[in-house]
Amino acid sequence: MMDYFSFEVIARQGRARAGIIHTPHGDIPTPIFAPVGTQATVKSLTPAQLYELDAKLILSNTYHLYLRPGDELVASLGGLHRFMSWDRPILTDSGGFQVFSLNEMRKVDDDGVTFKSHIDGSTHRFTPEKAISIQENLGADIIMAFDECAPPYDRPYIEKAMLRTHQWAERCLKAKTRPDQALYGIVQGGIYPDLRQRSAEVIASLGFPGHAIGGLSVGETKDEMHKILELVDTILPENKPRYLMGVGTPGDLVNGIQRGIDIFDCVLPTRLARHQAAMTPTGRINLLNASNARDEHPIVTGCTCYTCQHFSRAYIRHLFVAREMLSATLVSIHNIHILLKIARDIRQAIIEGRFSELHSDYELMLETGE
Amino acid sequence: MMDYFSFEVIARQGRARAGIIHTPHGDIPTPIFAPVGTQATVKSLTPAQLYELDAKLILSNTYHLYLRPGDELVASLGGLHRFMSWDRPILTDSGGFQVFSLNEMRKVDDDGVTFKSHIDGSTHRFTPEKAISIQENLGADIIMAFDECAPPYDRPYIEKAMLRTHQWAERCLKAKTRPDQALYGIVQGGIYPDLRQRSAEVIASLGFPGHAIGGLSVGETKDEMHKILELVDTILPENKPRYLMGVGTPGDLVNGIQRGIDIFDCVLPTRLARHQAAMTPTGRINLLNASNARDEHPIVTGCTCYTCQHFSRAYIRHLFVAREMLSATLVSIHNIHILLKIARDIRQAIIEGRFSELHSDYELMLETGE
Repeated sequence: MMDYFSFEVIARQGRARAGIIHTPHGDIPTPIFAPVGTQATVKSLTPAQLYELDAKLILSNTYHLYLRPGDELVASLGGLHRFMSWDRPILTDSGGFQVFSLNEMRKVDDDGVTFKSHIDGSTHRFTPEKAISIQENLGADIIMAFDECAPPYDRPYIEKAMLRTHQWAERCLKAKTRPDQALYGIVQGGIYPDLRQRSAEVIASLGFPGHAIGGLSVGETKDEMHKILELVDTILPENKPRYLMGVGTPGDLVNGIQRGIDIFDCVLPTRLARHQAAMTPTGRINLLNASNARDEHPIVTGCTCYTCQHFSRAYIRHLFVAREMLSATLVSIHNIHILLKIARDIRQAIIEGRFSELHSDYELMLETGE
Repeated sequence: MMDYFSFEVIARQGRARAGIIHTPHGDIPTPIFAPVGTQATVKSLTPAQLYELDAKLILSNTYHLYLRPGDELVASLGGLHRFMSWDRPILTDSGGFQVFSLNEMRKVDDDGVTFKSHIDGSTHRFTPEKAISIQENLGADIIMAFDECAPPYDRPYIEKAMLRTHQWAERCLKAKTRPDQALYGIVQGGIYPDLRQRSAEVIASLGFPGHAIGGLSVGETKDEMHKILELVDTILPENKPRYLMGVGTPGDLVNGIQRGIDIFDCVLPTRLARHQAAMTPTGRINLLNASNARDEHPIVTGCTCYTCQHFSRAYIRHLFVAREMLSATLVSIHNIHILLKIARDIRQAIIEGRFSELHSDYELMLETGE
């Protein structure tokens, strides 16, 4: 493992830290936000546009790629990096979250999960071994253990799912064969501190090179999420990266980094973009609003992204009104830029020992949670 | 006029010529293919991607921009170049073709046309003066006279529409006020040589700095189109650019350039791209075909476009199957590249006196017309 992966913490301030994860496809500076490319494409963007944004890590989804185009096809074409023409680090999830989101379309047992495809209703089965095999075919740099993600307030189910997640974590470790991939374990336990403590201790004891916190941002309050982060952070080893799965509003980044998180991912920036919403330092704006119709200013004055350097709100609103695809591209560029920049700015602030001063810049984001 | 626009012919071979149109937003090397940005965006592409393709001229549509977002709004935001962030030459059509395509939704008289918007059914009126006023608000470098485009085989209607087009051409010349725009006249007359001859003579006599041939590629055969081009070419002055409106398959480019055409535009490359079709030297291919599912080759082996340099047919097919927006972007890049390259290659061949040898490269395109 050490030949391919290592994690250096280069600066700390409070619980927050700045680091570098070394991978076979290059370095990931942390804290980092990873844009999501569910189907082997960050929606509406070329890899060239992502390089220009200086994205360092992207996430892709095992469940979706397994169903379409199929992980074996991706493997036969040289793996996911080559398939989507992205030569920087990739992280794949295990498919667990997606499968458990299918609700009535899946049936779980201790060995794995049987589910129906959302595309054509065909029946499939994931086990920990299968999730690892798929992820080895895809070939991401960081891969995830197969876990069961339960609804936030059903304690008996959460406990059962957590115990299963622990057993599955061990099976994933055994199943893994590729030395050029780092397998991260996932902590579950819902909003219950005793369960989270137990889960963090068990997962930390298994020797994963990195750890994720799953089962958050699934309906609980921000306060509940923060308490769990503070607790888990004291248990997970300091010398390994911590990844908060599926979480990524600007406020979440600030709050998560404060609590020791290194990696974030979220579909939010691209999904908002397709629904006319842009991130700004004072919260989200709806670009379709009539107030933007004659506005010659960019989404955010002074923003250095390609979109804000070249286009007015009036133009972008026109693209949405006229249902032009370029609208999604331009606003995705802006929203991803905002999240990457927050992580970059905070990283620099941690290195320079001024993260606490920086907080005031993000006060509104922290308030609105957006 | 001479301060802003001039046309140099730098080489000839047969009827074909290589030239340069000087405009306030830079030079247009001819022959040239202009991608179409109907609603102030070449569908699914950023201006940066068009610069990377080395597109030198784009077309935008007066009818669409008049309705949405409105030409006065575009003017108040600094004109079309600034609005869409494109600082190279732009050509706008007059709206004539679009309005006459509305069929039952419009009523023409000698003074102009009353029509209903395809967006909301509201009633509007275009006259030659209005078409010029809109185009002055938009601010393209090359603007077009307001013409009436008739169906290809209705001789009495075609003759009437042609006479109206001549009267309107004079009114457009009188209405024009901006010295930084070049107004091109349009030859009509359908597939009838005597009408085309008369139209070309009348339009040529009015002193436009450039001439367009309208009313072709509207249902007539390729042979009929070629005969008209050959005829009109002998009448329109040699020292002014000739623009074949709305025509732009690879075969059309080769055939048109052979017959003295300098400028082409067509929605074909981007429209095909959204319907899974890519241009290749041996004709169109449908990327959804199952034969592409595991094909690791690019759309065209050896093609230097961004798409072919980075992505396999299998990946692009996956994007179409998964209904990902990036599919349209990648195939639009390729198709536009193909058309720009054909025009560039032929231009160079004309300069080097080997256009006739080059014909064999395009034999298949000439045969299939694709």
